Amino acid sequence: MAASSINSELARSPPAIPLPTPPLTNFKIGLCQLSVTSDKDKNIAHARTAIQDAAAKGAKLILLPEIWNSPYSNDSFPVYAEDIDAGGDASPSTAMLSELSSLLKITIVGGSIPERSGDRLYNTCCVFGTDGKLKAKHRKIHLFDIDIPGKITFIESLTLTAGDTPTIVDTEVGRIGIGICYDIRFPELAMIYAARGAHLLCYPGAFNMTTGPLHWELLQRARATDNQLYVATCSPARDTTGWLCGLGVTPLLLVLLEKFWLLQNARRQPL
Amino acid sequence: MAASSINSELARSPPAIPLPTPPLTNFKIGLCQLSVTSDKDKNIAHARTAIQDAAAKGAKLILLPEIWNSPYSNDSFPVYAEDIDAGGDASPSTAMLSELSSLLKITIVGGSIPERSGDRLYNTCCVFGTDGKLKAKHRKIHLFDIDIPGKITFIESLTLTAGDTPTIVDTEVGRIGIGICYDIRFPELAMIYAARGAHLLCYPGAFNMTTGPLHWELLQRARATDNQLYVATCSPARDTTGWLCGLGVTPLLLVLLEKFWLLQNARRQPL
Repeated sequence: MAASSINSELARSPPAIPLPTPPLTNFKIGLCQLSVTSDKDKNIAHARTAIQDAAAKGAKLILLPEIWNSPYSNDSFPVYAEDIDAGGDASPSTAMLSELSSLLKITIVGGSIPERSGDRLYNTCCVFGTDGKLKAKHRKIHLFDIDIPGKITFIESLTLTAGDTPTIVDTEVGRIGIGICYDIRFPELAMIYAARGAHLLCYPGAFNMTTGPLHWELLQRARATDNQLYVATCSPARDTTGWLCGLGVTPLLLVLLEKFWLLQNARRQPL
Repeated sequence: MAASSINSELARSPPAIPLPTPPLTNFKIGLCQLSVTSDKDKNIAHARTAIQDAAAKGAKLILLPEIWNSPYSNDSFPVYAEDIDAGGDASPSTAMLSELSSLLKITIVGGSIPERSGDRLYNTCCVFGTDGKLKAKHRKIHLFDIDIPGKITFIESLTLTAGDTPTIVDTEVGRIGIGICYDIRFPELAMIYAARGAHLLCYPGAFNMTTGPLHWELLQRARATDNQLYVATCSPARDTTGWLCGLGVTPLLLVLLEKFWLLQNARRQPL
């Protein structure tokens, strides 16, 4: 066996499918850790500024956090929800993302917002291409229903409906698998994306301070190592005043001071 | 949905199979980080003492490291290999494990030794029950063939044959899934064990100082978290003089000063 051909992928039987070559192999990701308020217009304006700022600094891919246009509560989801498929005035949050992705010629993995579809609500991530078009829509598959007395109680399934489809999307910066927050807890989803040739997994999140310190960094590193691909995540800036019903978020470990993370050579590096 | 029934397992569809109740739910594991020499008799005597010591301190399960009776080299494997199935004088290393497990009424996950079977060599872990009988034999499935110039080169497949079977074994301390070292790198094996009701995964290892700092702790924590079970690992004491052909091992993070780790309530604790 030639030395150059020895790597861990060969220990798999059958071997992994080779990755397609990404259009860009070295680019900046902007991880915009937005602070979220109860004023939707303000949230949209703030996201707009952050995206423009990140693009001006060279980001070709921008990732927003989970539920960035609304407070994170079951009371708020129905009020702040938008009809993404109707678009335009029915979805000012995604209209802004579409406008900016086209204007700035960037790919946006638009965190998530509450989506109204018929009489159901979803926690939905929209991906926009450099032409401003909606390339993919991921509905959070694994709703976070947790009850740890004295620590955290949140039952997302009281208002939200779970998505039922993995989402993989080809963009200007490569093939991306999408998950939302608790979706990262389930290794099968990441394995499906890896098997389908993803270079990068993007998980918008809003991790809490109970399971966050246990899981947030560990799961990102595990998904990246097990599947030999890059993982990018983004949570909102933490609000320490407690208005998020006791929810906070862990600091994003990969983010740099300028909210940029240089994705160098988005190829598998087997070890 | 009742609050008490809310946990991450319910987000799986179909849900995970409930764990069988382990015979013991609170017991000590002795992780014997043996130093390994080129003298097999000395290695066996040293292992005997360490096991007796651990049992005297209350360990009900004892785990040894990978290749504890032989230097870790392709030159040594054929010389130190034993015919485990023939037993007795043909396998003094496992004869000692059988004798002690019966004498001390403990379960031993006997690290691994080079096994000769016909004209093939395997890297094999033997599990002995409290009656001294061989309960299971795991042959390392994922051989470690690595070539990082200037760092580490080791081609196990030059001498060893890979096993082809997952190994799960019911013991006095519960249902255990067995892997050897690089087997931990492959999440599918751990997922198979979890699906078959394992409470605990045991991975004897001999991690090196190149991939060890990157993977050793991360993979243990990932397997435990993803599959909601306990993980115990054990590497040899590190030899810093370099006779192991540049291989060393990472320190075992879970081991306590007395080489014991208290396994409290070996049940799933979903988060």
